[in-house]
Amino acid sequence: MNQFDKTNISDPFVSKNTIEPYSPGELNGLSFAVKDNIDVANEITGYGSPGWINTHSEPVVNAICLEQLLNAGGKFQGKTKSDELAYSLIGVNSFYGTPLNPKAPDRVPGGSSSGSASAVASGLADFAIGTDTGGSIRVPASNCGVWGYRPSHGAISVSGVLALAPSFDTVGILAQTGKILEKVMQVLLAENSNGSNAFSSVCFVDDVFQMSDRQILDKITPSLNKISDICKVQTLKLAEITDPHVNCNWLFEQLGFLLSTEIWNTFGAWIKNEKPELSSGVEYNLHGYAESANRKVIQSSLCAKKAFQNKISNFLCGGKILCFPTTVDLAPRLDEITPDFLAGEYIPRAMGVNAISSLSCTPQITIPVAEANGVPVGLSFISGYGQDMSLISFCNQLNT
Amino acid sequence: MNQFDKTNISDPFVSKNTIEPYSPGELNGLSFAVKDNIDVANEITGYGSPGWINTHSEPVVNAICLEQLLNAGGKFQGKTKSDELAYSLIGVNSFYGTPLNPKAPDRVPGGSSSGSASAVASGLADFAIGTDTGGSIRVPASNCGVWGYRPSHGAISVSGVLALAPSFDTVGILAQTGKILEKVMQVLLAENSNGSNAFSSVCFVDDVFQMSDRQILDKITPSLNKISDICKVQTLKLAEITDPHVNCNWLFEQLGFLLSTEIWNTFGAWIKNEKPELSSGVEYNLHGYAESANRKVIQSSLCAKKAFQNKISNFLCGGKILCFPTTVDLAPRLDEITPDFLAGEYIPRAMGVNAISSLSCTPQITIPVAEANGVPVGLSFISGYGQDMSLISFCNQLNT
Repeated sequence: MNQFDKTNISDPFVSKNTIEPYSPGELNGLSFAVKDNIDVANEITGYGSPGWINTHSEPVVNAICLEQLLNAGGKFQGKTKSDELAYSLIGVNSFYGTPLNPKAPDRVPGGSSSGSASAVASGLADFAIGTDTGGSIRVPASNCGVWGYRPSHGAISVSGVLALAPSFDTVGILAQTGKILEKVMQVLLAENSNGSNAFSSVCFVDDVFQMSDRQILDKITPSLNKISDICKVQTLKLAEITDPHVNCNWLFEQLGFLLSTEIWNTFGAWIKNEKPELSSGVEYNLHGYAESANRKVIQSSLCAKKAFQNKISNFLCGGKILCFPTTVDLAPRLDEITPDFLAGEYIPRAMGVNAISSLSCTPQITIPVAEANGVPVGLSFISGYGQDMSLISFCNQLNT
Repeated sequence: MNQFDKTNISDPFVSKNTIEPYSPGELNGLSFAVKDNIDVANEITGYGSPGWINTHSEPVVNAICLEQLLNAGGKFQGKTKSDELAYSLIGVNSFYGTPLNPKAPDRVPGGSSSGSASAVASGLADFAIGTDTGGSIRVPASNCGVWGYRPSHGAISVSGVLALAPSFDTVGILAQTGKILEKVMQVLLAENSNGSNAFSSVCFVDDVFQMSDRQILDKITPSLNKISDICKVQTLKLAEITDPHVNCNWLFEQLGFLLSTEIWNTFGAWIKNEKPELSSGVEYNLHGYAESANRKVIQSSLCAKKAFQNKISNFLCGGKILCFPTTVDLAPRLDEITPDFLAGEYIPRAMGVNAISSLSCTPQITIPVAEANGVPVGLSFISGYGQDMSLISFCNQLNT
């Protein structure tokens, strides 16, 4: 199978062994799917990797997040495809095929929660659980035109979820509507309220707007105008919000380095001992970035992350929200995906934007607001740490 | 070897392969040890368990927290013993012996960071890294008469650290002095400041005082008087701070159940597939609690945890600190440790107190303030989430 063969479109599901809800609850009547890096009892958690499957056995119990959804009345529909080792934002898997992007069939779905996004966008599930470390919920949600949510880091249990880079790993969701997303997040966050924080103003992050594709900017203008009508707004650069040296390129470099160091903690011994089957792309990333990251300078990068996190937290604590396009480029066409493309600017540009939330531990929501040339466009909002339910309420109000 | 043989006192170290600092830094001149559930490159991370060692290979890189300390000038002295699978608060390991409690040689050191506490209390290291899920730093720090710190959940990277129950797992430290603890935490939290939060008052947690051994209460009175001299103080029950049904027994039940569910996610498949060698005590806990926890009621317990966390957070956000004895019982004598003792009230009483921080994600510090009958007594303080450096500064001021 050739990962660059654009005809290699596949079912978003890995398996379709359903599980009935344990009891009635808030999620009555809703069906969901779960990404294949989250444990479902008695099925090997495949991680989008034949090398992983061949060296691991099946879990004996479901991940905690899956138990929560079954506790609350949700019906489990099956497991969805992941990019190999969840180590990509593209959504192309050379071993198992590329889940369809139903809103833009000639475009990639985005990854690594590719099957989850595809299943929701295709109407095969009301919502789906995925994971987001450096954008793996947000990018596919935007590409496939569905709602996507990365929670405050640590807010949802990762027990029974395969680790990638624990300081950044989150369990998040993709949903057909904001109302479904709100119900599901209330269950996963185990919150009894819809959030009590009022937001005083929205800050457009100028760096991201400046980087964005013209077509994206044109199409989100009505949404931005609507925000301006109902909220106090301002436009600031990241350098003004945080520190003078901060921009998306700097954020990409910090996040890329810190992810690399933790990813080698996660996979190093396995790679060395098991010599698992890997695609050439993942093999290159693991050896070229993760293994070769200079661990003697971790501390300075962690200090930079913490300073950024503190500045973002201080800025947002007064009831502000950040707003920017979820991705600065439209979903790439399937026939664009070549080794040269993957080594180019698309990934650094996407990761630099994703890094705002990944590095600051804050929650981020992306909502589908438009299409450009038939390709979905997502708009993102970030609130302060822990204000997850309030952020979702805000977006649902915005969307009515 | 008999785990109940009180003569089975052993070296706190598992291995003594030292690593020189990568570069000079804030930790110049300080030596440290690392608990044997934290990766050190090229040595199998043993988890206090021969069954674990026999089924795992050595990591290829150090845990992120170890890299941070080496980056900052610390000298690594070796790896310290852990209770089997970090699944105990006692400090007795039937396979590898019980690290000496040098301050009270006829008493247990406490666990599961038993070797780390013993090494620090014995002067074999200036500080040591351990982990704390349900009290595994706090109890041994108190028993051995050293400073101990459990950080805000998620504040220190757990990459390269063996998981037990991820929603509760933290990397924490044991230190000979508050000043050393402050330096080390500044490095591990990657913070450039000593904390800027001022605390307005100290709240004595009445439930814990009511449960405490008379000898402990007598000996901490001077410390409490000193706090009353310099701070506004009040005494409240947990039910007044949070909700009417909350007390330490309820907290123990919630924490015990939630730990059990996540621990079975961590170990279930390994136990089933590898049938590892386990002590009878751990075997009983794994099958009697972890495997048999009713997963169909996880959600109600997670909602109870979140409600408790929100109430504690609201109470502390105005600059309050909680204060109570770290343990309500003196460290048990070695000759007391029998199966009957372990099935008795000691563990539930200890865990009920530890659960205040474990369930609310808040940081907790324990400082050695007295001895009762020659046995160290620790006093604990909890601040709001993320106020770690301020909490340490407060305790250092208190101690001068």
